[in-house]
Amino acid sequence: MRIALLGGTGDIGEGLALRFARDTSHEILIGSRDPEKARDAVAEYEDELETRGAQAEIKGFGNEMAADRADVVVLSVPPYYAGDTVEAVADSLDADSILVTPAVGMQGDEDGLHYHPPDAGSVTQLVAGRAPDDVPVVGAFHNLAADALSNLDNDLDLDTLVVADDDDAKETVLSVANEIEGLRALEAGPLANAAEVESVTPLVINIAKYNEGMHDVGVKWI
Amino acid sequence: MRIALLGGTGDIGEGLALRFARDTSHEILIGSRDPEKARDAVAEYEDELETRGAQAEIKGFGNEMAADRADVVVLSVPPYYAGDTVEAVADSLDADSILVTPAVGMQGDEDGLHYHPPDAGSVTQLVAGRAPDDVPVVGAFHNLAADALSNLDNDLDLDTLVVADDDDAKETVLSVANEIEGLRALEAGPLANAAEVESVTPLVINIAKYNEGMHDVGVKWI
Repeated sequence: MRIALLGGTGDIGEGLALRFARDTSHEILIGSRDPEKARDAVAEYEDELETRGAQAEIKGFGNEMAADRADVVVLSVPPYYAGDTVEAVADSLDADSILVTPAVGMQGDEDGLHYHPPDAGSVTQLVAGRAPDDVPVVGAFHNLAADALSNLDNDLDLDTLVVADDDDAKETVLSVANEIEGLRALEAGPLANAAEVESVTPLVINIAKYNEGMHDVGVKWI
Repeated sequence: MRIALLGGTGDIGEGLALRFARDTSHEILIGSRDPEKARDAVAEYEDELETRGAQAEIKGFGNEMAADRADVVVLSVPPYYAGDTVEAVADSLDADSILVTPAVGMQGDEDGLHYHPPDAGSVTQLVAGRAPDDVPVVGAFHNLAADALSNLDNDLDLDTLVVADDDDAKETVLSVANEIEGLRALEAGPLANAAEVESVTPLVINIAKYNEGMHDVGVKWI
């Protein structure tokens, strides 16, 4: 399968790219608005993997071409770009694509971070609203610390929650997420349940802030 | 220390009462609007503890008397009673009391449960707004499955998050929560961060609904 990480030069994109490349046999495509930046990131990720004896072919493209070539398209962009990025690549998506969104709207103040969803109810639902009607949208990878993902020395023991209305798309994303070593994907229901999933992201950041030694904290549902 | 569980005949009150009684040396007071109901619950809890070889003295009172006698007062009542219960016992509270609130506002539909905070931003903040000004309020014990708590055969391995503006009150609640075997209390910041903590409760219920074998699921921040 081909997995594209749009905005794959950013922190969560880097972490997912490295983990997918190391732990699975899927072909990984890095997308960026600037294809040159995507190729630079690919060179960096391949170096990182090679120093660990992992070989993986990763390719860099502009976001549209990455989306066009992929079966699973992960919108690893900041929340305020999520809607525009979907529209920018809309012509490259179809009913056989799966659009995955990990972004979360947050606002910070002196106390910590707070969940700040868009009017659609959640970024996941905003993405579903902006995507072409026939493209299934899945929320996943919301609550993972980027640093914990991108440091391959760090053995994961974390869960990620998956929300989707389309059963086939959901099963595919559960399956590829479970292929990442130490990551367990669980279901949290339809897209309408995305807000409660997204709001865990500011919470883990608050927990990291207020408890010593929990810088890259994640979550296990047990 | 004396710990009162107002509404201690209900499900989360029962679980906390049994765990505090078994695992700590604190004196446990069960409060109910009807003192007779409180005393019936006490008899039931003492039986349950005795069959497991645990001895504990628990006492039953009306909510006001339980609050009056306690150092830590846990509002283990449904969210829509939380504010009224605070006002009903307000004269029994003072600056030496600590008021603890585990309640969460939720609304259900066909998809699952959704976080539904009051206008105050969270039930925790609603309680703080209704409590006398000098009484410190702490949010804790929000995301625990009542069944998992009240079944003493079940060895816990769970976290609970504590929010508070008052440092001394926060330390006391962290300390008593950590005395429950298998429960780890972590900080999540001031009361203003309560909404993100509370919204984990509908999420764990959704996870229980959508994943087989996870009926009493809880959370670990790792």
